[in-house]
Amino acid sequence: MSTSAPQTPKHYVIVGGVAGGMSAATRLRRLDEHATITVLERSGHVSFANCGLPYHVGGVIEKRSALLLQTPASLGARFNLDVRVRTEAVAIDTARQVVRVRDLAAQAAAEAAHADGDDAVYEETAYETELPYDALVLSPGARPVRPPIPGIERALTLRDIEDTDALVAATAGARTAVVVGGGFIGVEVAENLLHRGLTVTLVEATPQVLAPLDPEMVAPVHAAMRKAGIDLRLGVSVTDIGADDVTLADGIRVPADVVVAAIGVRPDASLASAAGLALGPGGGIAVDGQFRTSDPHVYAVGDAVEKVDALSGGSGLVPLANTANLQGRRVADVIAGMPSADRPVLGTAIVGVLGLQVAATGWNEKRLRAAGRAYRAIHTHPASHATYYPGADGMALKLLVDPETDAILGAQGVGRSGVDKRIDVIATAMAGGLPASALAELELAYAPQFGSAKDAVNMLGWVAENLRLGIARSVQWHEVAAAVEAGARVLDVRTPREFSRGSLPGAINVPVDSLRERLADVPGPEVPLIVTCAVGVRGHVASRMLRQLGWDDVRNLDGGYTTWRAGMDASS
Amino acid sequence: MSTSAPQTPKHYVIVGGVAGGMSAATRLRRLDEHATITVLERSGHVSFANCGLPYHVGGVIEKRSALLLQTPASLGARFNLDVRVRTEAVAIDTARQVVRVRDLAAQAAAEAAHADGDDAVYEETAYETELPYDALVLSPGARPVRPPIPGIERALTLRDIEDTDALVAATAGARTAVVVGGGFIGVEVAENLLHRGLTVTLVEATPQVLAPLDPEMVAPVHAAMRKAGIDLRLGVSVTDIGADDVTLADGIRVPADVVVAAIGVRPDASLASAAGLALGPGGGIAVDGQFRTSDPHVYAVGDAVEKVDALSGGSGLVPLANTANLQGRRVADVIAGMPSADRPVLGTAIVGVLGLQVAATGWNEKRLRAAGRAYRAIHTHPASHATYYPGADGMALKLLVDPETDAILGAQGVGRSGVDKRIDVIATAMAGGLPASALAELELAYAPQFGSAKDAVNMLGWVAENLRLGIARSVQWHEVAAAVEAGARVLDVRTPREFSRGSLPGAINVPVDSLRERLADVPGPEVPLIVTCAVGVRGHVASRMLRQLGWDDVRNLDGGYTTWRAGMDASS
Repeated sequence: MSTSAPQTPKHYVIVGGVAGGMSAATRLRRLDEHATITVLERSGHVSFANCGLPYHVGGVIEKRSALLLQTPASLGARFNLDVRVRTEAVAIDTARQVVRVRDLAAQAAAEAAHADGDDAVYEETAYETELPYDALVLSPGARPVRPPIPGIERALTLRDIEDTDALVAATAGARTAVVVGGGFIGVEVAENLLHRGLTVTLVEATPQVLAPLDPEMVAPVHAAMRKAGIDLRLGVSVTDIGADDVTLADGIRVPADVVVAAIGVRPDASLASAAGLALGPGGGIAVDGQFRTSDPHVYAVGDAVEKVDALSGGSGLVPLANTANLQGRRVADVIAGMPSADRPVLGTAIVGVLGLQVAATGWNEKRLRAAGRAYRAIHTHPASHATYYPGADGMALKLLVDPETDAILGAQGVGRSGVDKRIDVIATAMAGGLPASALAELELAYAPQFGSAKDAVNMLGWVAENLRLGIARSVQWHEVAAAVEAGARVLDVRTPREFSRGSLPGAINVPVDSLRERLADVPGPEVPLIVTCAVGVRGHVASRMLRQLGWDDVRNLDGGYTTWRAGMDASS
Repeated sequence: MSTSAPQTPKHYVIVGGVAGGMSAATRLRRLDEHATITVLERSGHVSFANCGLPYHVGGVIEKRSALLLQTPASLGARFNLDVRVRTEAVAIDTARQVVRVRDLAAQAAAEAAHADGDDAVYEETAYETELPYDALVLSPGARPVRPPIPGIERALTLRDIEDTDALVAATAGARTAVVVGGGFIGVEVAENLLHRGLTVTLVEATPQVLAPLDPEMVAPVHAAMRKAGIDLRLGVSVTDIGADDVTLADGIRVPADVVVAAIGVRPDASLASAAGLALGPGGGIAVDGQFRTSDPHVYAVGDAVEKVDALSGGSGLVPLANTANLQGRRVADVIAGMPSADRPVLGTAIVGVLGLQVAATGWNEKRLRAAGRAYRAIHTHPASHATYYPGADGMALKLLVDPETDAILGAQGVGRSGVDKRIDVIATAMAGGLPASALAELELAYAPQFGSAKDAVNMLGWVAENLRLGIARSVQWHEVAAAVEAGARVLDVRTPREFSRGSLPGAINVPVDSLRERLADVPGPEVPLIVTCAVGVRGHVASRMLRQLGWDDVRNLDGGYTTWRAGMDASS
């Protein structure tokens, strides 16, 4: 790698100057000092902080300049890159290995001249040129979906600095906003418009925001958004966007000085598609394990490409900044001739919502069920750190496990702190191929202000192990009604005071601490029993006791009353 | 596991009612409802929060009751345990399978009667009894080391609630304190005595506090302690403890209304040893992979036992609460006849010091060097999350890698936030057998308030990969002087302004962004070159450039000026 005598310098052209594209460009330079490297970016900025855009709208990131991590000049000085902003790659001729490039500023000037009738200037302005390449890297990203709703042209989206400027400008003097779509960006934008002082309505066509979460996990997010004053309208779509309001499918009209469309994103594969490059089933650019498209000299990375799913091995779209960055670096390695390959994607992601951390990795229960895959679900409600030390927050965790192999299939978490850490640990365990039971043995850093001697992740492992070995049997929140219908009785082992604040329909209350003396109050032992407590811990103790004392059919309500309540709230 | 017809109930006796002992007792109950389970605890409390004791001294944990997680009564009600506090196991007769048990309260009463001359009461008081066992679990923990310093009897230690009460009482009216020993507990106690308003001196016989860290990593901890007003005296021992001061080996006398000895702990193996059970090379109780001592009916767990080191396979002492808890649960599984085994120990640990998180896992460089093991060290200084989002903290990370196998040997981190997460992720990667390069590919949850698109852990993986593939070569802070002596020149590629605030002796300053134009200012290309910047990132860019432009012998200073400065400060 330290060749001091260059052969003919290579020409590398990179389409897209953020995340994947710029990671590829800078890594390529470090690997090949002699190449010419040109980066084409359609917008006016490169290397900007995409994931920070909503927070500048809300004023959390005060200075716009903080979003601009690099400039063409700084990248030129450090990496000798030819970075061209407001420059679009409009066509690829794969046979000749050239990209047709349009200078958008020059085009705008020429068209202005044309409009002024100055055809001489117009015709003389060559705003398109051709760039030859030895290797071309496509990293155009994804475009916001704009559904064909009447009036959609008024809706703003949030993809780049220009969009951010437009949204900030639109909020000036505005009092009301409607955000259409409750994905990560929609939820972030809603929160930040609230910070700006607007009255915010969020409309989501499905029954929940944040699709990576299962319904019972998202309940605290809905509650936090409503508590903060966001008018959350779930399970209803937008039918019309008017001049100052938005009409929903249920006929309700919501005032809307500002409308933001955050319905999702779609791979920006138009350039690749027009060049005859193969697309995948999701409409993303198809690439092989070395990021090669169907043309051997054209590579693609980031939100625009189809990725290999770590669980199914199938193709999927995972528009995440960290994956784009990782792929950008890897494609540079491939182009420089190093041994390198893409890796299947888990899709670990996190979003902050009004002080809550909401994170997930792998598959959720909805997806497992839709795919017909066997799974076991585990819900826990641990504390972020030892509860005897001030400042511990509660959290909800969910683990999905393959009942045959004990493999971890996915995890979700919601809480005010410590969720990011637990999801990262589980994602790392998945990458290392650790089974769910092995989470029990992880040695995680413990002092009372940072964790628990029996950490939240260890606890998930113990529950998984108990279920795997048959020491515990569980019932899910959504299975209770059918089980009761079929004759099961519900035994709530919390204190009478807890019980009085709400329990499952028909539950009998015998606190765990007096259960041994009050066995006569427990139905059975021939009756199927569902044992429940607040979160599942006391229920496990009681279940173990009863099973050894003659009750044969005892199941512990997974996640306890807390998960059941969240599930009911989500279903209502 | 749901046997409803009990055979003869088993008798289980557990010595030690905290961490490992109580984890074993409660798990045993869940696995065996019919056994009699007796827990013997010498102190007046069980299941107390050992790791919280220093924080009650400092008033961070205000209420003493917060430290008492369970009582004998609550454990009796929920788990049907016979929990006896102020009760000491004084002898084990392994042949007869009985423990001789002393009721310390009854003994005290009897001895008081004896002192009063009431010999009739004294002789009638049977304060010792025998308890038979089918299985005995020893979890006596570790005792604070008390070195033979004149006056040591005045020094307080911190092991249980009674010690905590004594230390709190001693601080009343006190103005000065000396803490002897700079391990985790010494550092925590020093901070908490400062919170109490005392003037605190910490004396540590070695040149650094917190031995799990290498010297250059601990420099920010020393700085934080000194800045907070702790009089830190390193590399000097205590020779005498007087009535109101402490004399150090350098002759200095430090005022000390309160003296705390926190020199370390030693396994409490006296009971086991007296019973003829085998001890390990470190003086801990020797156990096999199923926690069995040399007697098949006696098991042992926690701080008192020797553990198997995950890296060497050898025996070692790892007095950590999380390990004790994990072992307590596992030994119950073994006793109940389940397939279960101990696992080798990495020794992941963390401590909070004046707002810093200080964490480590695996081996440090000192230990690798002492063992003659080959290793590669990597230092980075990433941010806790994206720097464009408010509130990012800097941190120092260190990774130790096997240069042959790419295995991760250990990691250390210091910073105000996000260190716990990174060390947990690395510990999990180690548990999963992931090589250092695989850290580059971990998909960690990214949003700008929680991490970076290229996370700190990914960065460590990239550095490891670059070194492994020869794309980068590095030099360590402690190797610079010898390299310069042998003819190497130092090229500092920071800005002139950064350079003017301090650099390596003899360094030449050519900023990376003008390096291509100023190659003539760079010594060589035949001269060996050490390239440096602030943390190693720009140095890597410059090194790659120079190697490809004809410089053959270029090494990047690992961790840059920041690590070099910390190393120099630690060595001075």
